[in-house]
Amino acid sequence: MKIGRQEERSSAISTSNAETIVVRGRDLTRELVGVVSFTEHFWLLVTGSMPSPAQRRMLDATLVAIAEHGLVPSVQASRMTLAAAPEALQGAVAAGILGCGSVVLGSSEAAGRLFAAIEARSAAGADLEAAASTVVREYRDAKSAIPGYGHPLHGGGDPRAARLLELAAETGVAGRHVAIATLVERLLPGLLGRPLVLNVSGAIPAALLDAGYPLSGLKGVPLLARTAGLIAHLVEEQQRAIGFVMSHAAARAIGYDGEAPPGFKPSDEA
Amino acid sequence: MKIGRQEERSSAISTSNAETIVVRGRDLTRELVGVVSFTEHFWLLVTGSMPSPAQRRMLDATLVAIAEHGLVPSVQASRMTLAAAPEALQGAVAAGILGCGSVVLGSSEAAGRLFAAIEARSAAGADLEAAASTVVREYRDAKSAIPGYGHPLHGGGDPRAARLLELAAETGVAGRHVAIATLVERLLPGLLGRPLVLNVSGAIPAALLDAGYPLSGLKGVPLLARTAGLIAHLVEEQQRAIGFVMSHAAARAIGYDGEAPPGFKPSDEA
Amino acid sequence: MKIGRQEERSSAISTSNAETIVVRGRDLTRELVGVVSFTEHFWLLVTGSMPSPAQRRMLDATLVAIAEHGLVPSVQASRMTLAAAPEALQGAVAAGILGCGSVVLGSSEAAGRLFAAIEARSAAGADLEAAASTVVREYRDAKSAIPGYGHPLHGGGDPRAARLLELAAETGVAGRHVAIATLVERLLPGLLGRPLVLNVSGAIPAALLDAGYPLSGLKGVPLLARTAGLIAHLVEEQQRAIGFVMSHAAARAIGYDGEAPPGFKPSDEA
Amino acid sequence: MKIGRQEERSSAISTSNAETIVVRGRDLTRELVGVVSFTEHFWLLVTGSMPSPAQRRMLDATLVAIAEHGLVPSVQASRMTLAAAPEALQGAVAAGILGCGSVVLGSSEAAGRLFAAIEARSAAGADLEAAASTVVREYRDAKSAIPGYGHPLHGGGDPRAARLLELAAETGVAGRHVAIATLVERLLPGLLGRPLVLNVSGAIPAALLDAGYPLSGLKGVPLLARTAGLIAHLVEEQQRAIGFVMSHAAARAIGYDGEAPPGFKPSDEA
Repeated sequence: MKIGRQEERSSAISTSNAETIVVRGRDLTRELVGVVSFTEHFWLLVTGSMPSPAQRRMLDATLVAIAEHGLVPSVQASRMTLAAAPEALQGAVAAGILGCGSVVLGSSEAAGRLFAAIEARSAAGADLEAAASTVVREYRDAKSAIPGYGHPLHGGGDPRAARLLELAAETGVAGRHVAIATLVERLLPGLLGRPLVLNVSGAIPAALLDAGYPLSGLKGVPLLARTAGLIAHLVEEQQRAIGFVMSHAAARAIGYDGEAPPGFKPSDEA
Repeated sequence: MKIGRQEERSSAISTSNAETIVVRGRDLTRELVGVVSFTEHFWLLVTGSMPSPAQRRMLDATLVAIAEHGLVPSVQASRMTLAAAPEALQGAVAAGILGCGSVVLGSSEAAGRLFAAIEARSAAGADLEAAASTVVREYRDAKSAIPGYGHPLHGGGDPRAARLLELAAETGVAGRHVAIATLVERLLPGLLGRPLVLNVSGAIPAALLDAGYPLSGLKGVPLLARTAGLIAHLVEEQQRAIGFVMSHAAARAIGYDGEAPPGFKPSDEA
Repeated sequence: MKIGRQEERSSAISTSNAETIVVRGRDLTRELVGVVSFTEHFWLLVTGSMPSPAQRRMLDATLVAIAEHGLVPSVQASRMTLAAAPEALQGAVAAGILGCGSVVLGSSEAAGRLFAAIEARSAAGADLEAAASTVVREYRDAKSAIPGYGHPLHGGGDPRAARLLELAAETGVAGRHVAIATLVERLLPGLLGRPLVLNVSGAIPAALLDAGYPLSGLKGVPLLARTAGLIAHLVEEQQRAIGFVMSHAAARAIGYDGEAPPGFKPSDEA
Repeated sequence: MKIGRQEERSSAISTSNAETIVVRGRDLTRELVGVVSFTEHFWLLVTGSMPSPAQRRMLDATLVAIAEHGLVPSVQASRMTLAAAPEALQGAVAAGILGCGSVVLGSSEAAGRLFAAIEARSAAGADLEAAASTVVREYRDAKSAIPGYGHPLHGGGDPRAARLLELAAETGVAGRHVAIATLVERLLPGLLGRPLVLNVSGAIPAALLDAGYPLSGLKGVPLLARTAGLIAHLVEEQQRAIGFVMSHAAARAIGYDGEAPPGFKPSDEA
């Protein structure tokens, strides 16, 4: 059945005939394979044009920064899934990607929207500090977390955020969004009553939006990067099976507090 | 409960403390972010060591070659999923990745296993052509497709395969597996009674195995590459919604041939 | 690392020892298997207590009503995924489930939240019609769709909605939420300037909330029901492969309007 | 592009017009909603005809038996995914379903294929015991696990298997496949040198194949059943967040044995 509006009937990403594959207007095998890096290709795919060296360097840096951070929940879900379903590596990757959500890795895009909202209000005439304070107060009053700030392990400062801002300055891409990201970090203690450091999910959109990467593609950066980390973990899982070991430890950490039939004796083994 | 053997209790990919994130033995922010490309980082994550320039170039070329080929089934599934569930980009990426299976994109790994089987038999003393013929006959007799050969659109030759083999020669990585891949293509008409061209999923493992990339990580290459293509399609889907348009056309292509209650009149609109 | 608050350390759903599996306080094999229906078991799993006959009948009716509606986008995504990755039925089911999102099937829960908001405002002292009008106006002013109303095919009335409300009356569960659902349908022409019929995703929460099923479990009803439909389609796909046929038709419906290299001739075949 | 053979162009599951939805030849709202149970509807969807009372009872029993068994890996993956991505319940369900693979829950179908292979060999003239011994020896020689036998917790006998066979006898469906399942259990000590009990994934196909349920739909039974269990866990996770607690415990169970930069001190906190 016809669902939704159906006005759009074309795509501008790729076409092909028997001899030639066209990607974003280029002949894939003559102009891209062996010529551009995967990072340049990703920028081209998403935006339709080739990145400048500074843009490429900034995108490489963010992808490298966010690709891997040990046995986080999404990696665990992915390795447990491979242990249970070794016939489908793609299923284990998918299970890991599904954990890149609003709480853990999707905050890059949410932070990008925060910065864009501050920028929009400032472009409409407000002083930048006033614009930032107003928007942050709206988040606070709606009891929303401030995306891009705070970290469970790196409470004293996320080393990846510092490094990305350093690179943004070094490559000359740093602009309005980096300024907003730093300003918000400075304002937060006054607005929330406690300091919250800029984290990697705040630094990524600040640097990439300044570099000209589109807001609508921001969530794709942690997703692509983590896919690389997940694949490394799944290659390791095939050699060192720890999926079920983690699952066993996780189950033992949780008690059962429901009812039980008369005479039921809990197992020593969770 | 304790499922499976539980001998392994460690991982060698990443660890961290409050100040430092370690990835494959390196300080992530000092030694990797801003220093290595995403492709080098992926090789490091999977193998534990940095690639040589030739290895990096070959990996870049394979990732670029396989990232995008238009509105293939996995891209359609992904765009339809975003249209139906726009709140979760990660779900749409996952739906697309789930279609990278044995028939469509997973054949890189399967072709790698084919070449490895021929290489193993040859290393055990057989003449390479005899080894290849024997292994291909086993596939044929088991009525298995020969992974890495044939293409629905590029029947006269997959331009990506040709380009990847050219690069393998140019970078000097071409060796035993490229020789096997080409040999099999030459033998197929005699063994199967019809020619089947080497496709991109055959050229990728040939080039990468010769470059020293591990067999167990082969399926990760199309998975990572297609994630980049999927993200580009999902960014476009947010601006040009064609997910439901494709679904409408797909439904109209299929008739209903089950029973119907008396008096039921089919809709003009599928 | 420690993410989020970690106060909860127990679950009340199931425990076991070597001889006995306990589910919601019952001995699974003695008290449930062969004794209760799957629908009763689902209600028990979600709520912790057994349903009354009226509750069971209402839950059965909603699950049957929403399980299947032909080649909708999620079914297409699922069948295409199986065609591409036949080694993993679970992956094809997962791809289909991922399309049960806010636009297509998740609206049951969203409609439940709409009704609950009206009920809350009314419980706080407002006249029910005033409460409904206020809440619907808020949705309209925020340019949000009114969840549970309107249907692309059944614009004259969704036959499943009518039948579910009929059953809610017949079983005696119909109460406050059914009244609200009907009231909103009556008010919509005046508030939106055009009629919108109550659809199945509006009738499900109305009937189930009145039956005592929890709001937080509402999205589980279409998810469980569609899983049944998806499995039927995947069994059929194994016998009648239409996944790639649908994909071919879908691709042909979409043109390419990007640039192309000089001399590139589009394929006759999309 | 045209992938695969494209001979099939119809489906027999559902069609509809503006007034009527047809499912397997029935008018959904008049003949099914409020009339049949969800379990009967599932049988109808998969097979095209309504189950007898014995068939319905056997399908109910298997679905109830396999729906829930505590904090198993797939449930953990699902709850961790919801914790990280609470905006998409469907993603968390999908992540759990992806863990229903060949090792953990998909063995129902694999056991069904084992029984069918024995039955086929016996139908071809062999004595049943000889047929069973031959097939089991083939699995053993290929170093394949015997699907449907053995359990990490219920080594002395899986109580669900016993109960399902009891019901198969009671309902009169028990036949050839139940006989084979019991025979294999009796032969295993002699063939493998150690006893392995029939588990729930062996009892399900034995009972359902005898009841007339199709082999190609067997994997759908644990998939549908576990979806019910997953939904219950996700409703609980929204009230009692243990996803990150499990993840924290799982991470602490695994050490890091890779290299580290000079001076790096591991965190006390994994």
